[in-house]
This record gives sequence, C-alpha cells and structure tokens, in this order.
Amino acid sequence: MTPEPFQREAVRRPASIKDVAAAAGVSATTVSHVLSGNRPVNEHTAARVRSVVNRLGYVPASLARSLQAGSTSVIGLLIPDISNTFFAELAKGAEDAAHDLGYGLILCNTEFDADREDRYLGMIRSRFIDGMVYASGSPPSRRRLEALMGKFPIALADEEVEGLEGALIATADHEAGGRLVGEHLRTLGHRRALMLTGPRALRSSNARANGFVRAFRGEVLELVGDFKESSGYGLVAKLLQEGGLPEDCTAVFAANDLMAFGALLALREAGLSVPEDVSVVGFDDIRAASLAHPPLTTVHQPAYDVGRTATAQLLQYVTRGEVPPASRHTLPVELKVRGSTAPAAR
Amino acid sequence: MTPEPFQREAVRRPASIKDVAAAAGVSATTVSHVLSGNRPVNEHTAARVRSVVNRLGYVPASLARSLQAGSTSVIGLLIPDISNTFFAELAKGAEDAAHDLGYGLILCNTEFDADREDRYLGMIRSRFIDGMVYASGSPPSRRRLEALMGKFPIALADEEVEGLEGALIATADHEAGGRLVGEHLRTLGHRRALMLTGPRALRSSNARANGFVRAFRGEVLELVGDFKESSGYGLVAKLLQEGGLPEDCTAVFAANDLMAFGALLALREAGLSVPEDVSVVGFDDIRAASLAHPPLTTVHQPAYDVGRTATAQLLQYVTRGEVPPASRHTLPVELKVRGSTAPAAR
Repeated sequence: MTPEPFQREAVRRPASIKDVAAAAGVSATTVSHVLSGNRPVNEHTAARVRSVVNRLGYVPASLARSLQAGSTSVIGLLIPDISNTFFAELAKGAEDAAHDLGYGLILCNTEFDADREDRYLGMIRSRFIDGMVYASGSPPSRRRLEALMGKFPIALADEEVEGLEGALIATADHEAGGRLVGEHLRTLGHRRALMLTGPRALRSSNARANGFVRAFRGEVLELVGDFKESSGYGLVAKLLQEGGLPEDCTAVFAANDLMAFGALLALREAGLSVPEDVSVVGFDDIRAASLAHPPLTTVHQPAYDVGRTATAQLLQYVTRGEVPPASRHTLPVELKVRGSTAPAAR
Repeated sequence: MTPEPFQREAVRRPASIKDVAAAAGVSATTVSHVLSGNRPVNEHTAARVRSVVNRLGYVPASLARSLQAGSTSVIGLLIPDISNTFFAELAKGAEDAAHDLGYGLILCNTEFDADREDRYLGMIRSRFIDGMVYASGSPPSRRRLEALMGKFPIALADEEVEGLEGALIATADHEAGGRLVGEHLRTLGHRRALMLTGPRALRSSNARANGFVRAFRGEVLELVGDFKESSGYGLVAKLLQEGGLPEDCTAVFAANDLMAFGALLALREAGLSVPEDVSVVGFDDIRAASLAHPPLTTVHQPAYDVGRTATAQLLQYVTRGEVPPASRHTLPVELKVRGSTAPAAR
C-alpha cells in the first residue's frame, strides 16, 4: 500500500525503441509492427511489448511529434475501485466535466495496487495523456506526487496531501460532516457514543472524527477501522462479546457507510434493536444506505461535485497551458436523517 | 431515447479545419491554437471549438498522420450510468482487460442521452479511439450500429441486438437466470406469482421472463416496468390498492433488483411480511441486495466477466487488425438464495 517513490524515473532519459525491444526480448522491428499494426504479431508477444511500452513510458517518434504539436485531448482519472459507488459518482462528475470540454477521460482503476498506479502515472510522464485527476483512495505518498506535480497537470480529488503546496484540490467538507453527526446525536439526547474511524493516515478520516468529537461534547470511545464492512462488524462484535457496549452508550458513529452496515449486523446478531436500543450513523450516503433496513442516517458526500470540480480545475490548467494559483475547493456535505437514529433510550 | 440513425455521417467527406472554424464562428488560426495549445485562447471559445471538433469528428493533420501510422492504444467503453453498480462492475472488467494489453479505456458515460452517445461514437469514426465496447443499456438501434459495425471494431456487452450479424457479443445467460428463479419458487411450493418485467424491446428482459415462465409452470401475472425502483414500487402499490395481490399469489419475481426493492417497500407499507406472506426475488445481485432487510434472493450476473470478455474480444480484433468470425459468449449466472424467499404460505 505504501508505494516506492519514483524520482529515479523522473530524471532518466526517454526510453528508445531499442530499450523496449531488449526488455521485451524481441527485435525492434517486432516492436514497430506491434505499435503500427501494419503486420500481424503473435498476440502474447504483442501483449508483452505493449506492457513494456507502458512500463517504460516509451513514446513512438511519430506520436511524440504529434504530441509536441499539441495535446492528446485525453486526461486520466485515477481511482481505487469503480465498483464503490462513491468513486463511481466521482467518476461520473469527472466524465461530465471532461465531456463538456471535448476531452476523453481514461479510467485508471488501481484496485489499491501501487504497481498499477505507477503504470498509470507513467501515462502522464510519457505525455500519453494531458493530465490526471488523482483520487487514489489511500494515503497518497507525498514524495510520489511531488515528483509529478509542478511538472505535469494533476488535480487531487477527495483526499488532500499533507504539506503539498501549489495543488489543485477538490474535497468534501469532512469536518463539517462529522460536526453535523455530533450535533444530531447530541440533540437526540445521546451522551456516550462509540466512534469507528478510518485509517489514521487519511486526513479526511481524521477530519470527520475531529468534527464529531467537538460537536458531540459527550464521551466517545474510539476504535480504528479500515473502511470495510468487515471491520465495522468485527470491531462491534468483539466489543459486544467482551461485555457489551460501555454503560449508557446509545449511539454508534461509523466514519463510512460500509462500516456502519457491519455495525448494524453485529448489533442485530446480539439482539439489540436499531434505533430503539442504539442509534447508528454512517458517512458517504452510498446507494445502499437508503435501501438498508432501517434506512441509514448518514452524511451525504458530494462525490459527483468533487469529481466534476477537480476535473474542471485540471482542464483549466491543461487548456490554458499554465499552472494556476493553488486552489482549494471544499464542497458542502448534508446530513440525511433516516430511520437508524432516534432519541436516546433511557 | 430513440436516437436518429446517422448513415448521413458515414458517407460525408472528412471535416476540415475550415469546417470547424465556420461551425464554431472563429478563424482557422484560432482552431489551430486551441488544438496545439501553443497560444492561449479564451476558455469559452476553446470549449466551443473542442465541442465542434468532437461533433464533426475533425482530426488534425498531424494527429491523422500518426493515426495512419498505427493505433492510438485507446479504446472506448460506452455505458449509460457508471453509478449503477452493474455497469461499474462491467467497467472494472473492461478496464482490467484493457490494462492487461497496455490499452487505455475511455469512459463514455451517456446518461441514456442519444446526442451524447452520438458524440462518443464519433470518436471511433474519427479514429480517435481504436474500438468501442458498446453497452448502452437501452434497446440499441440496429441501424445505428450497422453503420459502424463491419467498418470499425465494436463489441457488444450485456445486450445483444436483434438481427445484427457478425457481431462480437458477451452477455449473461439471462434465460438461465429466469429459469433458476422459476425452479426455486416452484420448489418452495409457490403456484401463483407476480412478474415485473423490464422494457419489452430489450432481449435480455424478454429472455429472463421466458426462462421464468417456462420453469415456474404456474400462473404468472405479468406487469411491465422500466427497471427503476419507482416502477417496482408503483406497479405493486397500485395492485395492492386495487384489491390486493391475486388470490394465492405468494411470490414476486422482479426482473432487476431495483424493481424488487420497490416491490419490497410497497409490500411492507401494505402490512405484508417478506418472506412470511410473500417471497420476493430480484435479478442482478447489485451490492445493496445482500445489505437489504431481508437480504434479497436474486440472480448474480457476471457483470465483471461480461465487461472483461467483451473487451478482450474487441482487443483481439484491434491488435490483429482483422475482423474475427462472429463470436458469442454467453456467461453463466448464479442464483443467490437469501432471506427474501421461503416456502409458500398456506
């Protein structure tokens, strides 16, 4: 999950067709045939050559000329998992912004795989794409990004990077989201709560937790999860087996919806009713949140707007051809009160 | 929803820079500056020019030369809605297949908008992309596709097109899915069922219905919906208000999960329990299906495999440079039995 920095890449000479041929174990002629499509090449050989071309960031001379002459009118969107509805909504916003300006959007789905992320970032180094919207979904490596930012057009979506200056950023107001949850539960009379946070290294996760704790002003037992349903289930089930929730703890705030679903399941299995015995709140408002039983009270994140705003910023940079001043867009969130929260049981 | 065919487009001469300039109301020099990025151009003007470039399928001479020399190593994926988890999974499979061969995948999200679909299909006519995986999610226009297929590499994913020969197709086995549901409900002792189908014009929807009716071998009341949650809710709520389900009708089969969720809601509002009073089955196995209460019995569609297979077929075509023989891949589905089905109430 913690990728190697690749400063090495940034300073080496551009790859030549001979480098590609050597690395793929074929002749330069074969590489040329694969890239030109003029002669048929064995499928597996062609796949190997393309893989090496990608890895080395090799740009054929003909394409390099056209790229020097202008832009490719294509940008990339780097996300970890398109089947997570949060990133799917973000992608929809990014695609809309790109489409508005006649740009194609290449989907770079990393599956949280650092090698795959590296290969996709290689597209920007090789000028195969004009820029990248970066929403890796994991704590970004500052050094990795610094090697690219300032040289190439990149905009951060969803997650900011500690200490990175001069960045284009669009993110939801995570702290305000946590605050809305804290106020909601306090107003309902809850005084002790269990909070399931995401990874400590994510600023967004810390911001949600800080906002909640400040607004709730009650006692908070904090457990660290990993944003997966299984960790919400595991943390709550373990607590219940080891003697139950702390006395008078009548609410659970999970820092994302998936962990909230896991918590709901563990509570139900232990014979506790939601919201009669315990109120549960999530964060994100993924599509399943309103379909769950009871429907989940949660914080609606403007995923579409985050994707759209970050991409629009990136394309301003790309089309104007100059680095814009550092620009941060913090987009508003909204509390969706549904059936999983109720006044504190007495 | 029913787009104009564009045979007209297929026969006209390639657009020139003068055509673009005239249509955008600017000089050819300005068009050149927009495309080369060598001089700054007013953002709104640049957007208008890019939009015209896209619409006319104009290819700058420098890019055209590089394209004649080979491929762009980019293909498109045309889908209606990336925030629908079925299409997100399909996109993930497509992206994996493209990534394996070093191809970039441009996300073409149409929002069921025929004009937008046209503009994206324009990318293949202009050779901006090497091929297209087509999963429009609405009844495809046969004439529209015929104008492109045979000339350009296209593979159909998810939905086949009546009467279209020589196509590359990857689709789930919709009829087998319907059959599995029919057998399951019959085995549980249900003899009368309500079936909510999708639009008649979709072969996939008809195949699900046919498979169900044949295997269930009981009485089936059929109502036509549109695959949206609201139509599942509306059809069932109306029936319940007008005198209730038909006598002895103890099961509902909805041709997709969203309509099943709507049916669940309408049944619950009418005071009926699922599965005690009525069993409910969906189709797709979207992520929310297992999170619903009760968890939804449904047919798991291999969305990832559909996207991956269609894309791999397309890339065989693209990398070999010749039209492969017509090829159809029908991928297996699986019944997921969960809490929303039970033996028929007596």
